[in-house]
Amino acid sequence: ISEPYRIERDTFGELKVPSNKYYGAQTVRSTMNFKIGGATERMPIQVIKAFGILKRAAAEVNKDYGLDPKIADAIVKAADEVTEGKLDDHFPLVVWQTGSGTQTNMNVNEVISNRAIEILGGKLGSKDPVHPNDHVNKSQSSNDTFPTAMHIAAAKEVHEVLLPGLQTLHDALEAKAAEFKDIIKIGRTHTQDAVPLSLGQEFGGYVQQVKYSIERVKAAMPRVYELAAGGTAVGTGLNTRIGFAEKVAAKVSALTGLPFVTATNKFEALAAHDALVELSGALNTVACSMMKIANDIRFLGSGPRSGLGELILPENEPGSSIMPGKVNPTQCEAMTMVAAQVMGNHVAVTIGGSNGHFELNVFKPMMIKNVLNSARLLGDASVSFTQNCVVGIQANRERINKLMNESLMLVTALNPHIGYDKAATIAKTAHKEGSTLKATAIKLGYLTEEQFDQWVRPQDMLGPK
Amino acid sequence: ISEPYRIERDTFGELKVPSNKYYGAQTVRSTMNFKIGGATERMPIQVIKAFGILKRAAAEVNKDYGLDPKIADAIVKAADEVTEGKLDDHFPLVVWQTGSGTQTNMNVNEVISNRAIEILGGKLGSKDPVHPNDHVNKSQSSNDTFPTAMHIAAAKEVHEVLLPGLQTLHDALEAKAAEFKDIIKIGRTHTQDAVPLSLGQEFGGYVQQVKYSIERVKAAMPRVYELAAGGTAVGTGLNTRIGFAEKVAAKVSALTGLPFVTATNKFEALAAHDALVELSGALNTVACSMMKIANDIRFLGSGPRSGLGELILPENEPGSSIMPGKVNPTQCEAMTMVAAQVMGNHVAVTIGGSNGHFELNVFKPMMIKNVLNSARLLGDASVSFTQNCVVGIQANRERINKLMNESLMLVTALNPHIGYDKAATIAKTAHKEGSTLKATAIKLGYLTEEQFDQWVRPQDMLGPK
Amino acid sequence: ISEPYRIERDTFGELKVPSNKYYGAQTVRSTMNFKIGGATERMPIQVIKAFGILKRAAAEVNKDYGLDPKIADAIVKAADEVTEGKLDDHFPLVVWQTGSGTQTNMNVNEVISNRAIEILGGKLGSKDPVHPNDHVNKSQSSNDTFPTAMHIAAAKEVHEVLLPGLQTLHDALEAKAAEFKDIIKIGRTHTQDAVPLSLGQEFGGYVQQVKYSIERVKAAMPRVYELAAGGTAVGTGLNTRIGFAEKVAAKVSALTGLPFVTATNKFEALAAHDALVELSGALNTVACSMMKIANDIRFLGSGPRSGLGELILPENEPGSSIMPGKVNPTQCEAMTMVAAQVMGNHVAVTIGGSNGHFELNVFKPMMIKNVLNSARLLGDASVSFTQNCVVGIQANRERINKLMNESLMLVTALNPHIGYDKAATIAKTAHKEGSTLKATAIKLGYLTEEQFDQWVRPQDMLGPK
Amino acid sequence: ISEPYRIERDTFGELKVPSNKYYGAQTVRSTMNFKIGGATERMPIQVIKAFGILKRAAAEVNKDYGLDPKIADAIVKAADEVTEGKLDDHFPLVVWQTGSGTQTNMNVNEVISNRAIEILGGKLGSKDPVHPNDHVNKSQSSNDTFPTAMHIAAAKEVHEVLLPGLQTLHDALEAKAAEFKDIIKIGRTHTQDAVPLSLGQEFGGYVQQVKYSIERVKAAMPRVYELAAGGTAVGTGLNTRIGFAEKVAAKVSALTGLPFVTATNKFEALAAHDALVELSGALNTVACSMMKIANDIRFLGSGPRSGLGELILPENEPGSSIMPGKVNPTQCEAMTMVAAQVMGNHVAVTIGGSNGHFELNVFKPMMIKNVLNSARLLGDASVSFTQNCVVGIQANRERINKLMNESLMLVTALNPHIGYDKAATIAKTAHKEGSTLKATAIKLGYLTEEQFDQWVRPQDMLGPK
Repeated sequence: ISEPYRIERDTFGELKVPSNKYYGAQTVRSTMNFKIGGATERMPIQVIKAFGILKRAAAEVNKDYGLDPKIADAIVKAADEVTEGKLDDHFPLVVWQTGSGTQTNMNVNEVISNRAIEILGGKLGSKDPVHPNDHVNKSQSSNDTFPTAMHIAAAKEVHEVLLPGLQTLHDALEAKAAEFKDIIKIGRTHTQDAVPLSLGQEFGGYVQQVKYSIERVKAAMPRVYELAAGGTAVGTGLNTRIGFAEKVAAKVSALTGLPFVTATNKFEALAAHDALVELSGALNTVACSMMKIANDIRFLGSGPRSGLGELILPENEPGSSIMPGKVNPTQCEAMTMVAAQVMGNHVAVTIGGSNGHFELNVFKPMMIKNVLNSARLLGDASVSFTQNCVVGIQANRERINKLMNESLMLVTALNPHIGYDKAATIAKTAHKEGSTLKATAIKLGYLTEEQFDQWVRPQDMLGPK
Repeated sequence: ISEPYRIERDTFGELKVPSNKYYGAQTVRSTMNFKIGGATERMPIQVIKAFGILKRAAAEVNKDYGLDPKIADAIVKAADEVTEGKLDDHFPLVVWQTGSGTQTNMNVNEVISNRAIEILGGKLGSKDPVHPNDHVNKSQSSNDTFPTAMHIAAAKEVHEVLLPGLQTLHDALEAKAAEFKDIIKIGRTHTQDAVPLSLGQEFGGYVQQVKYSIERVKAAMPRVYELAAGGTAVGTGLNTRIGFAEKVAAKVSALTGLPFVTATNKFEALAAHDALVELSGALNTVACSMMKIANDIRFLGSGPRSGLGELILPENEPGSSIMPGKVNPTQCEAMTMVAAQVMGNHVAVTIGGSNGHFELNVFKPMMIKNVLNSARLLGDASVSFTQNCVVGIQANRERINKLMNESLMLVTALNPHIGYDKAATIAKTAHKEGSTLKATAIKLGYLTEEQFDQWVRPQDMLGPK
Repeated sequence: ISEPYRIERDTFGELKVPSNKYYGAQTVRSTMNFKIGGATERMPIQVIKAFGILKRAAAEVNKDYGLDPKIADAIVKAADEVTEGKLDDHFPLVVWQTGSGTQTNMNVNEVISNRAIEILGGKLGSKDPVHPNDHVNKSQSSNDTFPTAMHIAAAKEVHEVLLPGLQTLHDALEAKAAEFKDIIKIGRTHTQDAVPLSLGQEFGGYVQQVKYSIERVKAAMPRVYELAAGGTAVGTGLNTRIGFAEKVAAKVSALTGLPFVTATNKFEALAAHDALVELSGALNTVACSMMKIANDIRFLGSGPRSGLGELILPENEPGSSIMPGKVNPTQCEAMTMVAAQVMGNHVAVTIGGSNGHFELNVFKPMMIKNVLNSARLLGDASVSFTQNCVVGIQANRERINKLMNESLMLVTALNPHIGYDKAATIAKTAHKEGSTLKATAIKLGYLTEEQFDQWVRPQDMLGPK
Repeated sequence: ISEPYRIERDTFGELKVPSNKYYGAQTVRSTMNFKIGGATERMPIQVIKAFGILKRAAAEVNKDYGLDPKIADAIVKAADEVTEGKLDDHFPLVVWQTGSGTQTNMNVNEVISNRAIEILGGKLGSKDPVHPNDHVNKSQSSNDTFPTAMHIAAAKEVHEVLLPGLQTLHDALEAKAAEFKDIIKIGRTHTQDAVPLSLGQEFGGYVQQVKYSIERVKAAMPRVYELAAGGTAVGTGLNTRIGFAEKVAAKVSALTGLPFVTATNKFEALAAHDALVELSGALNTVACSMMKIANDIRFLGSGPRSGLGELILPENEPGSSIMPGKVNPTQCEAMTMVAAQVMGNHVAVTIGGSNGHFELNVFKPMMIKNVLNSARLLGDASVSFTQNCVVGIQANRERINKLMNESLMLVTALNPHIGYDKAATIAKTAHKEGSTLKATAIKLGYLTEEQFDQWVRPQDMLGPK
């Protein structure tokens, strides 16, 4: 049974387009030529929405430069609908298309042009009175619009999902660090018993990692705020007007509330996407931090009886389909899987970023897909990890105390008093004989009981003197 | 407005479940606890369908071991519906859940149990007469079923998508190599002019790469055919019966037509996923081959007037939103983007694979997502690249001839006759003076015209003598 | 103060060469043009020695085809000295040179030519009677010799270092698995307490990983055994003789005892290095296995008092410069660092392997450097890890017993008797009340003491029934 | 024959130490326990020299806090010798040792202690009057000194090698951009002919990439300037004095002229090395830029007769051992190999950085090795590429003009006048008929000769209007 359709044409000829869709011939052609990966591989909707913002901004600036206000206003209205997500079903293309994203740019041009035509009472597919190239794409090329949409989408995802997620995690960890500040516990280096610290200090390390995660992401943004718009086909700005680039960037900035500016060098902005490689590098570093924190928390919470058992993690769901009563650190697992994915995404972005040629990098859709995926996953996972794990963590004080008091590494406090070599003898002897440090130290005649009690005090071992 | 719902319960308590869904409490709980990434991040449907195969196989074997045939048969029927894709809407969970995939195993257990209950006229959510754990999951654990489903899904994707795709590409390139076998062209090493070869030989190199791609993937499969089923919780096979593992593998093999066997060592099969890292490594090598081939073809087809211009690539769509008449090697671009993605996916798989602890690797969902994505993308892109590019490639014979005849590197044929040093002088002089090799060689007095004509014959330079 | 020197010349002119060195003008020129990285970045000596083997083989075959026996024999003698490591000081070039390795091929040609001249009583630098290009490089090009040397070097490193190292590790782990076969211990999944297995079974998983590591490396070798020699400049075999390729491969095979054959397709063998990407992929998988094993061992050996403490690792050195008596799992740390390096090397190899163009991949020196480094590090680390850690591992039986008997997950054995839900209630209640499974089970009235003792027996939980 | 030796001891017992070496028992023990990789795998000498700086700084601060001035001054003198490279032969340890770098810290402590003992007239190996732990390592632990040395070494390498190298490249490219500013050439997008730009604009894109490379590296440095010293064993600063951390950082800053400060959070500084992952991420982005630039230059310089031929690259050495007169873009090849290596190193650093546990990351030596390698290679390669390639690049004006004038993409200038669709018809017709744009445009009746000449002027196509 055949769906109703209309005929649209591009420079390659005519094609049937479903009647209920705003897109046109070039979009249909792409769906025919790129059957790769299926629906889960569609161009991220954030890119489409970013295009909505850009097309509106361009239309407004074009109006300033003489575009028929009626056409410009219709484009603005249609573009807003794209941004608002009202037309999501009209963007069927996958990431695995032309490497410039031209087909998605044309998909957007076609949808906006047909919707604008509709608004103005025209006939879909007629390209009249709103032409996808001559009007919607006016003063633009895929080569500058797609990277512009990439940067808008990346910056918005960072601000709307990633940074709030990291801040949520940061605040929760900071609260835990405060809550745990007086709990003295054994330290572990090389996974082996070491000198004590407070549980608050341990969590303080995580807080610092997340704090720097936020700083790292922010430090990468200035170059992401640079927009390629105005460079058109190769960066020269052919077929645009002087001032167009700056005005579009200002409009986009106003529409998004983010400090976008026109790119310093349009040739670089089209031919390379170092700014996204850089951002991805920041996300990669964030992923390392997340892996460390989530690993620590699951090991410290391991047990309940045969692990380290210093933390009690919230129980959120049945942990096993065969082992009744089992509870697992599932939020840690989701987070560490996300971290691994982000590290992999980063390599894909790196390879894409390194393989541009001449005036255009043609790994654009793949690069932005991965950057957006990394930002979203890290942001979402931070919130999930916080709400379903961090805020509910309890310290198992009894267990923590027991382990700390048994530790042989408290002997380190004796170094300044009796020297490293004698201290080592005490520790090794106690370990071999299964006795306490104090008994061994006294037996070896290195110090008195009073000296031991005075020198080896965990609460005095948490800082310099 | 609230949807109609029923109450289901797990060991954590009661939850509302949408009335029109077969899944139960544990699935709902997972959707509440793991709001990470949204719909595009769902567990790949191939994993769900593989679970359908496994659950059917297990039910049949359990029947052999005494499971009530009525229950077993209902499970088989429900499992088949899962495999056939009839219940796709009942699997809402994302990849970013517990690292063992327990929640997806339970999602499958719940859907099959409820659907089987329905088949048997029972009440959804009652767990009676078909219990998700005691019956659907009988003799199983997430820890062995999820890796089993991973291997089934991976093997099927390889056989149904990847290998046919590679074969398609191989055959098309082989046909082109035959078509082009008599076209002599300049070779290029270091991107610089070199001695000649035939265009058929050049394409023959690509053919070999794809041939070996197929071999590499196949070489990785023996360890993918090993199924963990029967290992249950930690690899010991607790709560299964002797023979269960072997019988399930045989059933799965029969159901899929693929040579699955029970894993040699169940501890390894749960705790490590080296087999998938290995398969991903094979896909990574395939990606390298694809990158090389697609890069060559786009450079050899570059132009139309200012590039190398030796190949004429099919024109499939308008290439530019601003440059009228432009045609681009878009299929090459899709392929190279896919290659970069596969390389990135491989790093994610590697990191996940390296981070297992003790009796269980908990990066399972992330690993299989990436492996399936790589296999699918490479397979689909191979077909797209073949149909929309390779089969339509034409040799630009005129251009090829012109470049070949002007080449200075034909001088290499003189080495055996006059030595490397004199040959170098000829080439350098001709280059400096912009003259031909022949004129220069004669002018330098190194040989006669007759000798040049006899010794420097491109058609004699295509092989050893 | 100036060193004594002689004058040598290449097609670019004259250069001063240190009198005490056999290399010539092209080598000196490379040291001037590529001041990158310094002495630690030299071309791996294994590549140089592989060249010695190849140059000898080529000379012998050239003699069959008519090369003056006096010259051929002198080349053979000089080449042997290269292989034996007698001339290591004459190969100063770094990896970061031309991507074809031409300069290293010429370095070898120059050293062998001069040494052969010396053997024959000639004058160094005279190129008479043994010319570096016309005689030592006869029937060869850098483009086929360098990849040939890459494959020889890689295959030898695999056979001489990597595989023996892995076998050593395999055997030691296997002995431990046998030694530990009757020690029943708690399993851990998700790092949490799980059902029991034997320590021998746990080690058996590692044994399987190493066994498959060996298989994986071996599975990659067939394509590494293919030698490019005979392809000369672009793969056609220009300026060689029919049969040269096969005879050289046979000679190399005889000289090394490894099953080298001539490459099926010389174009592929020069333009792509998929075989090394594939081998690197195998090493990457091995690295994942090593990371898993070493991580497990350090965590199982963590303590001595506040960790899991199930294994007692050998004490090899003082562990801390500040904490007296501290002993650390340093062999595990070396191994995991090696694993991370191998994974990184693999990405470098992948990127290099994907970026070949036309008839030649020009990432050759970088690729082989990384492959050799990975093979060597994994092989050496396997031996070090075995000798200094694995063979000395002791089971802490007392600790293992204690943890196992306290475990709540033994409840899983009750599933077939009382069902998953009741078993879960027992485990959760015991956990909450800090009591034993048995007491809780009886108190809840789910079974009798006799039933519990009969059903919950760790020694019966190690396999299917 | 046995070398002369002396006996030294550590807490594990006595060992023979070569008489002519300053190191002691722990160093010898490490060489026995870690036979991994051989001499090329030694701890980078930059780390050793950084330790010299740190040990001097610590001794001076310890003197302020009461360390015997005679001992302190001897330590300072010995430490300076380490920094100056006078004792390089006394540091035999490889990277693949304990993951905390403890053995290298002890190697340094032993060398400095013995050298200081010698200075003070004592007996080597006596630990008197200068003890390696109690005096040289006073107020320190490997756990804080090794990361401090990592940061010092990385910052110095960045400032002394990398940034100067990048600046050299930047300046040379900028000069070329100025030199080429009036040369109008064809642009290439998708590797296909596109609208024109100036060669100066094209090089301007590269200049921008290098400019941002420098900015990116600098942006990563603030967190590298943070020093862990003062954290001692787990970050608490046990066994140091209040103020020690700040004073040591100030001393190191004074000694190096770099703005080092004490780390904000010592727990983070020991347990994670996110700062190095971040720096490595910046180097990874630089590598992408370098790959792009070097690839462009080799393709634009490809030929001499069958490539793009727009650039003439300097001829530095014979390019082929078989093809006489061949010249290759070898500097581009070295640079792109370096780029691939840096990307691989980055993955190794990332994996190491993500795998820290509890209070200590134990991938330290591996991480710093890779970071230093990346910084050095990029810096050296930038200088080599500049001096041996960039500065000598000439534009092939004749070729550039010819290609530009033949281009069909000049048609783009007609869009604003006749619309995209008609312009496309002109280009496609001219392409099909092999005619010029002008002739075709007039023949199609879309415009007059005068209009064409007025509208299609390459020199007017280099910017907006």
